[in-house]
Amino acid sequence: MVRAFQYVATASLVVGTVRGTKYGVGGVYNGLARTPQMGWDNWNALGCSVSQDLLTQTAQLIVNYGLRDVGYEYVILDDCWSNGRSANGSLVPDYSKFPEGMTAVADNMHDLGLRFGMYSSAGSMTCGGYAGSLGYETIDAQTFASWGVDYLKYDNCYNEGESGTPLITYTRYKAMSDALNATGRPILYSMCNWGEDYPWKWAQTIGNSWRMSGDIYDSFDVADENCPCTGDEGYDCALPGFHCSMMNILNKYAPLVSKSQPGAWNDLDMLEVGNGGMTDTEYVTHFSLWAATKSPLIMGNDVRVMTPSALSILTNPAVIAISQDPSGSSITRRWRYWVNDTDISGKGEIQLWSGSLAYGDYVVVLLNAGSAARPMNATLEDIFWLNGPGGTASQVKQAWDIYDVWANRMPNATAAAIIAANGTSGVDISQYYWNATQMSYADGLAANSSMLMGNYTGTVQPMGTINTEVEAHGLKMFRLRLHASGSATKRDEL
Amino acid sequence: MVRAFQYVATASLVVGTVRGTKYGVGGVYNGLARTPQMGWDNWNALGCSVSQDLLTQTAQLIVNYGLRDVGYEYVILDDCWSNGRSANGSLVPDYSKFPEGMTAVADNMHDLGLRFGMYSSAGSMTCGGYAGSLGYETIDAQTFASWGVDYLKYDNCYNEGESGTPLITYTRYKAMSDALNATGRPILYSMCNWGEDYPWKWAQTIGNSWRMSGDIYDSFDVADENCPCTGDEGYDCALPGFHCSMMNILNKYAPLVSKSQPGAWNDLDMLEVGNGGMTDTEYVTHFSLWAATKSPLIMGNDVRVMTPSALSILTNPAVIAISQDPSGSSITRRWRYWVNDTDISGKGEIQLWSGSLAYGDYVVVLLNAGSAARPMNATLEDIFWLNGPGGTASQVKQAWDIYDVWANRMPNATAAAIIAANGTSGVDISQYYWNATQMSYADGLAANSSMLMGNYTGTVQPMGTINTEVEAHGLKMFRLRLHASGSATKRDEL
Amino acid sequence: MVRAFQYVATASLVVGTVRGTKYGVGGVYNGLARTPQMGWDNWNALGCSVSQDLLTQTAQLIVNYGLRDVGYEYVILDDCWSNGRSANGSLVPDYSKFPEGMTAVADNMHDLGLRFGMYSSAGSMTCGGYAGSLGYETIDAQTFASWGVDYLKYDNCYNEGESGTPLITYTRYKAMSDALNATGRPILYSMCNWGEDYPWKWAQTIGNSWRMSGDIYDSFDVADENCPCTGDEGYDCALPGFHCSMMNILNKYAPLVSKSQPGAWNDLDMLEVGNGGMTDTEYVTHFSLWAATKSPLIMGNDVRVMTPSALSILTNPAVIAISQDPSGSSITRRWRYWVNDTDISGKGEIQLWSGSLAYGDYVVVLLNAGSAARPMNATLEDIFWLNGPGGTASQVKQAWDIYDVWANRMPNATAAAIIAANGTSGVDISQYYWNATQMSYADGLAANSSMLMGNYTGTVQPMGTINTEVEAHGLKMFRLRLHASGSATKRDEL
Amino acid sequence: MVRAFQYVATASLVVGTVRGTKYGVGGVYNGLARTPQMGWDNWNALGCSVSQDLLTQTAQLIVNYGLRDVGYEYVILDDCWSNGRSANGSLVPDYSKFPEGMTAVADNMHDLGLRFGMYSSAGSMTCGGYAGSLGYETIDAQTFASWGVDYLKYDNCYNEGESGTPLITYTRYKAMSDALNATGRPILYSMCNWGEDYPWKWAQTIGNSWRMSGDIYDSFDVADENCPCTGDEGYDCALPGFHCSMMNILNKYAPLVSKSQPGAWNDLDMLEVGNGGMTDTEYVTHFSLWAATKSPLIMGNDVRVMTPSALSILTNPAVIAISQDPSGSSITRRWRYWVNDTDISGKGEIQLWSGSLAYGDYVVVLLNAGSAARPMNATLEDIFWLNGPGGTASQVKQAWDIYDVWANRMPNATAAAIIAANGTSGVDISQYYWNATQMSYADGLAANSSMLMGNYTGTVQPMGTINTEVEAHGLKMFRLRLHASGSATKRDEL
Repeated sequence: MVRAFQYVATASLVVGTVRGTKYGVGGVYNGLARTPQMGWDNWNALGCSVSQDLLTQTAQLIVNYGLRDVGYEYVILDDCWSNGRSANGSLVPDYSKFPEGMTAVADNMHDLGLRFGMYSSAGSMTCGGYAGSLGYETIDAQTFASWGVDYLKYDNCYNEGESGTPLITYTRYKAMSDALNATGRPILYSMCNWGEDYPWKWAQTIGNSWRMSGDIYDSFDVADENCPCTGDEGYDCALPGFHCSMMNILNKYAPLVSKSQPGAWNDLDMLEVGNGGMTDTEYVTHFSLWAATKSPLIMGNDVRVMTPSALSILTNPAVIAISQDPSGSSITRRWRYWVNDTDISGKGEIQLWSGSLAYGDYVVVLLNAGSAARPMNATLEDIFWLNGPGGTASQVKQAWDIYDVWANRMPNATAAAIIAANGTSGVDISQYYWNATQMSYADGLAANSSMLMGNYTGTVQPMGTINTEVEAHGLKMFRLRLHASGSATKRDEL
Repeated sequence: MVRAFQYVATASLVVGTVRGTKYGVGGVYNGLARTPQMGWDNWNALGCSVSQDLLTQTAQLIVNYGLRDVGYEYVILDDCWSNGRSANGSLVPDYSKFPEGMTAVADNMHDLGLRFGMYSSAGSMTCGGYAGSLGYETIDAQTFASWGVDYLKYDNCYNEGESGTPLITYTRYKAMSDALNATGRPILYSMCNWGEDYPWKWAQTIGNSWRMSGDIYDSFDVADENCPCTGDEGYDCALPGFHCSMMNILNKYAPLVSKSQPGAWNDLDMLEVGNGGMTDTEYVTHFSLWAATKSPLIMGNDVRVMTPSALSILTNPAVIAISQDPSGSSITRRWRYWVNDTDISGKGEIQLWSGSLAYGDYVVVLLNAGSAARPMNATLEDIFWLNGPGGTASQVKQAWDIYDVWANRMPNATAAAIIAANGTSGVDISQYYWNATQMSYADGLAANSSMLMGNYTGTVQPMGTINTEVEAHGLKMFRLRLHASGSATKRDEL
Repeated sequence: MVRAFQYVATASLVVGTVRGTKYGVGGVYNGLARTPQMGWDNWNALGCSVSQDLLTQTAQLIVNYGLRDVGYEYVILDDCWSNGRSANGSLVPDYSKFPEGMTAVADNMHDLGLRFGMYSSAGSMTCGGYAGSLGYETIDAQTFASWGVDYLKYDNCYNEGESGTPLITYTRYKAMSDALNATGRPILYSMCNWGEDYPWKWAQTIGNSWRMSGDIYDSFDVADENCPCTGDEGYDCALPGFHCSMMNILNKYAPLVSKSQPGAWNDLDMLEVGNGGMTDTEYVTHFSLWAATKSPLIMGNDVRVMTPSALSILTNPAVIAISQDPSGSSITRRWRYWVNDTDISGKGEIQLWSGSLAYGDYVVVLLNAGSAARPMNATLEDIFWLNGPGGTASQVKQAWDIYDVWANRMPNATAAAIIAANGTSGVDISQYYWNATQMSYADGLAANSSMLMGNYTGTVQPMGTINTEVEAHGLKMFRLRLHASGSATKRDEL
Repeated sequence: MVRAFQYVATASLVVGTVRGTKYGVGGVYNGLARTPQMGWDNWNALGCSVSQDLLTQTAQLIVNYGLRDVGYEYVILDDCWSNGRSANGSLVPDYSKFPEGMTAVADNMHDLGLRFGMYSSAGSMTCGGYAGSLGYETIDAQTFASWGVDYLKYDNCYNEGESGTPLITYTRYKAMSDALNATGRPILYSMCNWGEDYPWKWAQTIGNSWRMSGDIYDSFDVADENCPCTGDEGYDCALPGFHCSMMNILNKYAPLVSKSQPGAWNDLDMLEVGNGGMTDTEYVTHFSLWAATKSPLIMGNDVRVMTPSALSILTNPAVIAISQDPSGSSITRRWRYWVNDTDISGKGEIQLWSGSLAYGDYVVVLLNAGSAARPMNATLEDIFWLNGPGGTASQVKQAWDIYDVWANRMPNATAAAIIAANGTSGVDISQYYWNATQMSYADGLAANSSMLMGNYTGTVQPMGTINTEVEAHGLKMFRLRLHASGSATKRDEL
């Protein structure tokens, strides 16, 4: 059943014609990542423990488990893969880890219908202390292209003081952007400068995504001294840090939602789903929010020891359909209140987010980051606040059918069976997976596929309120679709 | 009755002789906007839905409704009008929207006695993703001048990292300033960089106005996550954002009052009057404050669906007389107190503002941003604090006649009749409108016109206190005029 | 009795040999202002109302009232004196205000034994809109030198965006510094950039003093919206503003005390003593703090209408002796506590400051910025905290005689008599004035002059506490002198 | 017993091959300070009172007291040693203080088996006003190398405005870095720019350590107005200041722990142990924290009047073994809580820190900065938080033996005897001192030396909690070692 197809550069490289053209035509940068990129990166689970075997095994599992067809197409090798530079200055792989070299790895990925990503830093060294690309942008981009690399994660360590104003950092990151484009190969450019010098102000024309915070940690909301800037203006942080909890990043992200657009995304960092630091409920929350904020969805767990819970979460078609929605619009936070049932760091809060989707649909998120389950509600006025203040939006005066995007989640037993069989036989995944290789999410949404909708759970009347129950550290994520005229039920509550 | 007159460039272009000359002679920049500019811009109500028809219809209504003669002279076409650049690099209109091109539009405006404004961005693209002017300043300025453009709104999107210090941003905006001046045509330069890098420190010599905050939203005071920096030093904001409520902008503006001067204004963003997100009372508050802070008064509603309330507010002569006062001095906030009757965002406050006007008059604003009506008062010591601390100002020892500038507001029924008749017949507006085409506000004030004064409501004695009642989300705005000697009444309260 | 002496450039110009030489030898900059400069400037009282007559009359009164001999040697003409530039680019006086030109004014000052100061701005215009010196530094410095100018106040308006990092602002101000030095004439360089870009970090080698805050207002502590940054790190202010109360500036200054040194002073702005916005008690507080913080002492009142209170305060020899102490060391704040008896802005606080003086003396300030008189005390451990933490300083183990520097203040009746007689006859001022023309404060202190000490009021024992009573908005300022061994009284309280 | 050995440059100079090489091979900079440097500097105790005699006497005592063999190898002469520049521009010693010149001093140090450090500033003058090295980097580095200097402390005073972005400050400090490296002599480069422009972001490739705060004061936690930025983001400080208490610096340091690495250290400033402003308990806390945070350990007391307490603290082998641990990893703060038993500044808090050591050991610090003794505890989940969130770290599931690193501290009587004998005879120090000249700490740890472990005090069970009692202003610092399998005691408490 596994289908190996040849790599085809489907993205047209539009660099050079972007400026002066409406971005709707050619994208603001290079035409890639028109929806947030999906893939896998070894760092969160494995750090520097990289090897050809790891990538080969993981790639095969990504195919076997159906994750490729679900959309996770980029397999990204993070730091610690090199062994300095050759006499001519080009980067040399560490052949003890990659005995056949990088072209072989890339070929393997392409043969599996995947794309291959690599890593460097806009500094004299990578964060792990390996050779960095600062001053070597041209030769390194050419090397990557020659190896068949499709994606570059570009870090910020050892940047030799080249920061402090947007202009300084922009110039440093643009050097690699220009070098990548000059290769002629479509290479997705994932900027990883941790929000320093406000990349959301300037990165859209030189990269496909940019990190907007310090590094994620596999924790729901526990405070960690390594991740400062926890106050009201947390996005404006002189020390991005690391060990940032999922909620910490989310809260720093809230004012930045408008900065993402097709081809240029705020990156809330790679997923921690399946790494063990959060509960299943918390991972559902994490994954839902990353999807709805249009963060890249880069799996960060060790696929070789995939848990059923993780597989079930990572493949949910109705959630991924929100991530890959062609409108490319992030949810926005409407309100945030503190609650008394706090965690060990003394924090507890509830939030409402909402946003628009293609084809007139909307997404609503009721997040309970408190430590107790609670009833929560959202008025249409708040849900459609972005469409007009004070209930003036026309959407408020309409009835909406409510679909729960988590209702049809694959059972853990099914996921366990898939994993047990290495994905190679026996389990029919077609009822739980959307096969994006066969039909894109955009086409599926256009075709009104029920799998991408979630479960109908009721209808909210004009001027009404959605009422629901949300478990601790959980959320409810609903897709709203305009209720067929005349048929609105009278039920205002779920 | 509608009079079409030929466009005459009344402003003398004084660039080049400004430096080294007292600004009282030639203005600090180009001699334009000696009082805050007035006009209309399509963005707030209509966004990218622009066309020649929209401008033509709107311009005609602006004339018909008397708004031109009231002072709204600039008709400004915002983003989304272009279709890239021609082979020689010049901007090309989107002929599907503007079939006759821009010169025809400008001619139409000029024929109607109006002036024509356009839009670009100091970036590689406009905010809507169209061709931006960064690097094209000279050719674009020449194009605009050749089309007969009288006004340029110049935005800040896609600025390619060129921000971070005043010097970087100044240099970017000065490029267009120099280019506009080099055309020889008087073009009002409206800088729209959202307060980034503190334009109030440096924009006076290169522009006529500068935005000092994120974009306005049609909301009185509701918090919105897209508009951060809500604390005490909100003007110092790393992320200007958008969806800023009227009160949010006002509070960010408070410490900046001294930075405006004739020819160089803090811009609190375009008006929302008539767009439906606020009540009539709230729009009165909004319009009054924008007038008294000497913000440009740019109507932001769809004139084709003008409401009577909006027309009545936008044409109030006694309020506009404060905006167009020849002294060019903004009101200053004297105090701000929190109150317990808060809105849904938990905010409630009251404020006192005051300022000087020409001919020895003063303006006083008692603002009630709480959710309940309340008595409010202002001492002469506070009103004249700027003239001397601790009651030392000579003005404190005088009696003042109090005029309510909203007392003579045009009735909604009259406004409705004007609108119903498309402004073309029947309704006598002369008792409600000041015709600034016939006599400027400055001349009217010099002539002591009662229409520009408002209604006498009492006299406050030396060392006295003004007492009044202010409705929720409302204000009282008074003009104070020195009481004729010997005739002070004993009444200290209104 | 009035003695006119010829101007002699007593300060040796040491520029060029400063670097690489211990500053004790030649000063960090140009050898001037080894103690904080003293003088008069017209701005606070008179603003733009300047004329040759004003300066001539004021200078004569400064001599007549003995203020020159007390130390107020610089007569400074502030903004609004020019009428643009001549054909060769040099600044031209406004001859309607200064009919004989500036050389005549300078000669007049020099004939009276005074020095002459002028004003310009490091911008394209002065704050009042007159020709600024940005780009004209060399020719303007030469003009000033040719006129006989001894002092330049150099403002920050219309700086064309040249701010944002210390390096940008330093470069702009250094241009005038270099130009002044190149003239060969000793010209005291008073930088007025309102603390922008942290001049206390870099101005010592290019100027004699630098403003560290927004402009002062004649108010003890009332909040004013024009002066933001009232929080804990108020010195780090993106908008210096104006209308800063005396206490506002003091509180911003507190962390900057170590940045002053002989020849290079933090400038807390010109004095408001005598301008009417504060009480006599408050002016005593203001003057005492400006003296003890080693701010320049520039009278800001209209000397032609000098009040007895102001004359009595401004001439107090024991207070000025602290300002002009050869050690050149500012007092430091040891503690600050909030109190409940607040002013109308809701502020009330008490503070302890102390510092070292020459010849082993110390100064102690107990400041009561509350609204009620109160007992206050200071332990020797706190007073000598800077000399060693936790009571480890050797000074704590000694007994100290306490001198009240305000005890011998000249009676208002005496001051009134001096003023009534225009200072020309009759009143013996020798018992209240220190004649620094005859003997410098340094020499007087070396000679142990009792007039410079204040009144002995008791002795504090080793490890003891000074107890006193301080009126509302007042202070007690004491000089401490080592108690003669063996003779310590037992009295620990005053 | 004192052994004089010839200086040997043991550090290989690896500059030039660092970039592009994994730092594990050659270090990120110059190969020096692979563990935090140890030594002595005169500034904290003696300031400008420097002389050849002081250095000679101190160096001999450092040898005699065994401090050299304990590891304090650098004897650093701070500011005030020069007398300007010679005709050729080179720095000239003040021969009145150093009659034999600097080469003689260096030779003396080298003969004693010590290394010699000197001081300059990246400014036009040093902080004391002597000739600075800005613009003289090459000649000064050559001079230092020619004198045999092994260490340069490089200060930040009078930097002529060259600050404001990381790039500006980096460039200034890199000039000296390059100059030092160009000499060919291994010179440890100790950057002293007080944390300005975030050196932790960029200094690792150009220096061996960098100050991260204002200057230390000999005080446990008392607030001092000269050291601002006491809030939550204290590391981001526009005014580093001085007189920073030990706790002030520690709290600013907390988010910066990850920025240190072998060869490149955050410098929390020189030690105050023995200077008299803190109690013995407080100095134990101070020294423990400086060791465990991997700050350089530079003694700051006057060795000629060494106290027994100080000698006992400074030589504790089990504490220094944590500083000199080959893993080079700082402790991280896990939590911080406020307590009610506060000091005179109103502050009281408790903290838990932990970190990893070589050979699988860990260090735990329970800090009681409150004013009362208290029981404190730490869960394994918190201790190993960095190894995995939510108790997921494998270490949490293991039993650990607990060693108190202060249990075997040398008695004060022994220390007094050493001091009384000038260290030259009689006292057997071998049971209290680790002789690093004979065997490095790394080798001692590899050899499992019990002297470097501290005292076994119990075992904490898997999933358990460490309970202990901590005195006011004190701490408990434990080394954790994996409990031998099968032999875990049941005792969960100490």
